Amino acid sequence: MSGIIACYNQNLIPLDELKVSITDRAFFFGDAVYEVLRVYRGKPFLLENHHSRLSNSLRAMDINGVTDLREDIVTNIALNQVDEGMVYLQISRGEAPRNHSFHNLSLKPNILIYTKPFIEHPSATEGALGIAAITHEDLRWGRCDIKSTNLLANCLIQTYAQQRGSAEAILIRQGLVTEGTSSNIFMVKNGQVCTPPLSPNILPGTRREFVIRQFLQQGQQVFERPISKDELYTADEIFITSSIKEAVAVIKLDYQPVGNGQVSSQAKLARTLIEDAASRLSRD
Amino acid sequence: MSGIIACYNQNLIPLDELKVSITDRAFFFGDAVYEVLRVYRGKPFLLENHHSRLSNSLRAMDINGVTDLREDIVTNIALNQVDEGMVYLQISRGEAPRNHSFHNLSLKPNILIYTKPFIEHPSATEGALGIAAITHEDLRWGRCDIKSTNLLANCLIQTYAQQRGSAEAILIRQGLVTEGTSSNIFMVKNGQVCTPPLSPNILPGTRREFVIRQFLQQGQQVFERPISKDELYTADEIFITSSIKEAVAVIKLDYQPVGNGQVSSQAKLARTLIEDAASRLSRD
Repeated sequence: MSGIIACYNQNLIPLDELKVSITDRAFFFGDAVYEVLRVYRGKPFLLENHHSRLSNSLRAMDINGVTDLREDIVTNIALNQVDEGMVYLQISRGEAPRNHSFHNLSLKPNILIYTKPFIEHPSATEGALGIAAITHEDLRWGRCDIKSTNLLANCLIQTYAQQRGSAEAILIRQGLVTEGTSSNIFMVKNGQVCTPPLSPNILPGTRREFVIRQFLQQGQQVFERPISKDELYTADEIFITSSIKEAVAVIKLDYQPVGNGQVSSQAKLARTLIEDAASRLSRD
Repeated sequence: MSGIIACYNQNLIPLDELKVSITDRAFFFGDAVYEVLRVYRGKPFLLENHHSRLSNSLRAMDINGVTDLREDIVTNIALNQVDEGMVYLQISRGEAPRNHSFHNLSLKPNILIYTKPFIEHPSATEGALGIAAITHEDLRWGRCDIKSTNLLANCLIQTYAQQRGSAEAILIRQGLVTEGTSSNIFMVKNGQVCTPPLSPNILPGTRREFVIRQFLQQGQQVFERPISKDELYTADEIFITSSIKEAVAVIKLDYQPVGNGQVSSQAKLARTLIEDAASRLSRD
């Protein structure tokens, strides 16, 4: 028993008991969007950024009738008395007899929110030691800027990487780095911090945006520019960002050391900036 | 109330009452495969082909421990006393706390089978009159040969087409025809019947295979070769195939008539061959 209380269409239900109709389009088509927010000191981190991205995903998918969920997120964290953890939020288009097209259907979105506590800081070890990553062809669809539950490619490729002793896979599309299976990618080369520019092939990560903004405030420019796979192999540093992993150095790429093979200085800086911001969230 | 009795993990449950755990990976990731079989005269059509394709999908996804479901399909059709209709079969990887990777997890697949009766022949009108189609960029992922429930691109594009008065969209990847959002594509040009060759960008449709085989038996060669978008505009005939639509002529493409704008002879032949085979299935 997880003890987690989920909010499903405004009803409070223990997560372990929550069941949904198979006619939910998430089940038949992956026709749903989602967000994962990190909770620090009982507060959702970067709530406005997640809210804004969620709105963009809903608009791109033409899912309508969803009210502002920011208050529900805060309420669910408090209800579950989570201090350190994550919020998962998923909105499916709704329930209907199985048919690809939703033309002329007036559906009521199904909204799930739950908060999961972390027993220990999930990226503490990886943050300290760094991770190994492999490169892999980006097999995903052409609208990765939409945060949808069509995540099969991500699942298959992340599993493939882990079966080979790597924590993450860095995806390559037509010779260029896009992102990780559940992270954005940063590369440092000759002192220049770079990350691939936003495009339909990349999710606009809230941590990606946060790190860019914080680096700029430190006087450290970040170049949003294409990064080729070949260039990645010559990187001095690589690190990934995500809401859960925060910022983690990639110390091995395709089984070879990255730079000096140690956790890099820019990855450390990114973690420090995130920790500083998290510690400024006030418990009340 | 549909009155349909579904078989879910060997339990019989009214479809309208069937609920699944949100931890089913189909719900969070679209981590599931499926098949849709047409039922004629109480019998599943092309059962062996669907079974074989399902096995291929499961193998490609590394979903293990699924027994032979052919008998369960036949049983569910009989249980629901369906004469004309379709079987929907879905297998998800199973239930687990949400995490992209399934590395080192030992999961029990969730298996859903249900049979839906057709009140009227679903492709009778379209078969007689033909349909309009538009072309659209193929936004899907790189493993469309796996029949997975990651169908968001298909849903969005089919809806987009229907909002514009077309029943289907013909998908174009790097200038070449792949398939429809829920069908395979055939083109006739100067008497030559063509269809795109199998690749990771195309689902090996059971009707596609059936039509190719039947045409060959009629002495009508079918060329499996790349078809460019430009060539499609000069086609004498276009038709689509799917388990539900069977074979249907495309009489308008991007709002312009295809050939003489009438239901084409090869589409009619394909429908006749399917009807003949269906009528040979014996009620017992």
